[in-house]
Amino acid sequence: MSTAIKPAWIALDWGTSHLRAYAMGPRGTVLARAQSADGMGALTLVGFEPALLRLIEPWLGQGTVPVLACGMVGAKQGWFEAPYRPAPCKPGMAPPITPPTNDPRIALHILPGVSQAKPADVMRGEETQVAGVIAEQPQFDGVLCLPGTHTKWIHISAAEIVSFQTAMTGEMFALLAGQSVLRHSVGGDDLDQAAFDQAVADMLSRPERLAQALFGIRAEGLLHGTGAAQSRGRLSGLLIGAELAATRPYWLGQNVLVGGAPALVALYSRALAAQGVPVQCRDAETLTLAGLTLAWTFLSETLQ
Amino acid sequence: MSTAIKPAWIALDWGTSHLRAYAMGPRGTVLARAQSADGMGALTLVGFEPALLRLIEPWLGQGTVPVLACGMVGAKQGWFEAPYRPAPCKPGMAPPITPPTNDPRIALHILPGVSQAKPADVMRGEETQVAGVIAEQPQFDGVLCLPGTHTKWIHISAAEIVSFQTAMTGEMFALLAGQSVLRHSVGGDDLDQAAFDQAVADMLSRPERLAQALFGIRAEGLLHGTGAAQSRGRLSGLLIGAELAATRPYWLGQNVLVGGAPALVALYSRALAAQGVPVQCRDAETLTLAGLTLAWTFLSETLQ
Repeated sequence: MSTAIKPAWIALDWGTSHLRAYAMGPRGTVLARAQSADGMGALTLVGFEPALLRLIEPWLGQGTVPVLACGMVGAKQGWFEAPYRPAPCKPGMAPPITPPTNDPRIALHILPGVSQAKPADVMRGEETQVAGVIAEQPQFDGVLCLPGTHTKWIHISAAEIVSFQTAMTGEMFALLAGQSVLRHSVGGDDLDQAAFDQAVADMLSRPERLAQALFGIRAEGLLHGTGAAQSRGRLSGLLIGAELAATRPYWLGQNVLVGGAPALVALYSRALAAQGVPVQCRDAETLTLAGLTLAWTFLSETLQ
Repeated sequence: MSTAIKPAWIALDWGTSHLRAYAMGPRGTVLARAQSADGMGALTLVGFEPALLRLIEPWLGQGTVPVLACGMVGAKQGWFEAPYRPAPCKPGMAPPITPPTNDPRIALHILPGVSQAKPADVMRGEETQVAGVIAEQPQFDGVLCLPGTHTKWIHISAAEIVSFQTAMTGEMFALLAGQSVLRHSVGGDDLDQAAFDQAVADMLSRPERLAQALFGIRAEGLLHGTGAAQSRGRLSGLLIGAELAATRPYWLGQNVLVGGAPALVALYSRALAAQGVPVQCRDAETLTLAGLTLAWTFLSETLQ
């Protein structure tokens, strides 16, 4: 297979369940992209390099191409461990670890995650999205909300991660909607916005009622024939509302930027806007690429 | 197979994941017991009668034996639907449905569950445990807490179910401990009591923090090497503490009787005792059998 793609470097977003690769040209331009399901969770130690080569082989030529990765690939159970940097710290300004590879055509660099001692918390990958926000808005002072399997709430000031916290909302939604007794009630993908809004409001005013409110979704369906879209909206609203109750000190009176998959960003920004919070929205890929590009600029200056 | 067991009637506790049968003699005595994994969730419509006969065949003879069942066997997706009775109502004093069977050696009766219109809630099987409490303590005025996959909190007065509510705590614990990212932290069966107590107290004072507290279990393990027993104690304590925060109007200033599997009863009664609540403890089987016996007495008077 012949190709004209000759990247200056290759950016990798390598998480638990996915591997996304970008052939990068000058000034953060993307020449080509590729992705696979070879996430960290699906690979054994010897599987990482072959999985990477399968994806980026078409972009490799005679010389050595630098490859810069963020995400769970740097976890203890990943390819090579990149120890956490303690917060507060400046994302995008971290020396990566540079482990050996078998194939001489790549020079691998893995960015570290960030830890917080108290309350104990960790992130891997999201710090690169923070770097993307800082690359785009160097003066940003406020909070970044990154919903996903685990939502991160990150306080940013003076281009630093000041503090952060994690909520397992996405994972709880997946387990409850897919495997609990509520699976009978919330089938399909439709989500009723009014039911969502009411559930968010219910949790923000009475957050201690979550445990009983969840089973109420099932009972409403059995007794009153509540539809799947309303039930799904209520489940999503209860969990996001409970998260907003838990993270109130992070968003109350703050500028909030929400970054992630568009459907999730829409739900979080809707819930925050209902509380009078000014919200900017971004998609996660844009932020990750901007952050990897900032980290690459820092790294190439270091390498010179 | 010859046997000396000649039951006056057969009691069935037929739930989602189990079928328990009791050959009953006079005055609530148990002549023999048998159980299988043929719960409602594992059977199709034509499977119920054969599953029952496999279990009780040794107790059947020439005549017809009455069989009285409670639990999910009477749900819409069960063998025959026994429509809910609306609360308030007297458990153990309900006419069962009496559907036809193919085998003339059994006369089947299924007890109805109980529903509550607002807040919407339902129970099937637990109403028979309530009947067991009333059979044992006819003057009981207080709250019955029945922890399990779904914990029921039931306000009882004047031998009636006045109101009730359900928390999905057991199911959430199983999903989070078995399938979420926390599974890496809470392995094994040991549970640290001090970590449990602290987590219950944390949730009762700040119930809105559940969403962030859960991920903290994982982060504590990664950063500070917290052990599995402590992590398991904290997960259990966070969820039970959040449930106690949600059900405070049910237990504050009330007499509480906790009924269920001994390990769960111990955790709930410990958490409630720490709040100064007087607690009686019972095992679930004792209550179910006493309730089925009360219902049988009522039914045999009706049949005469």
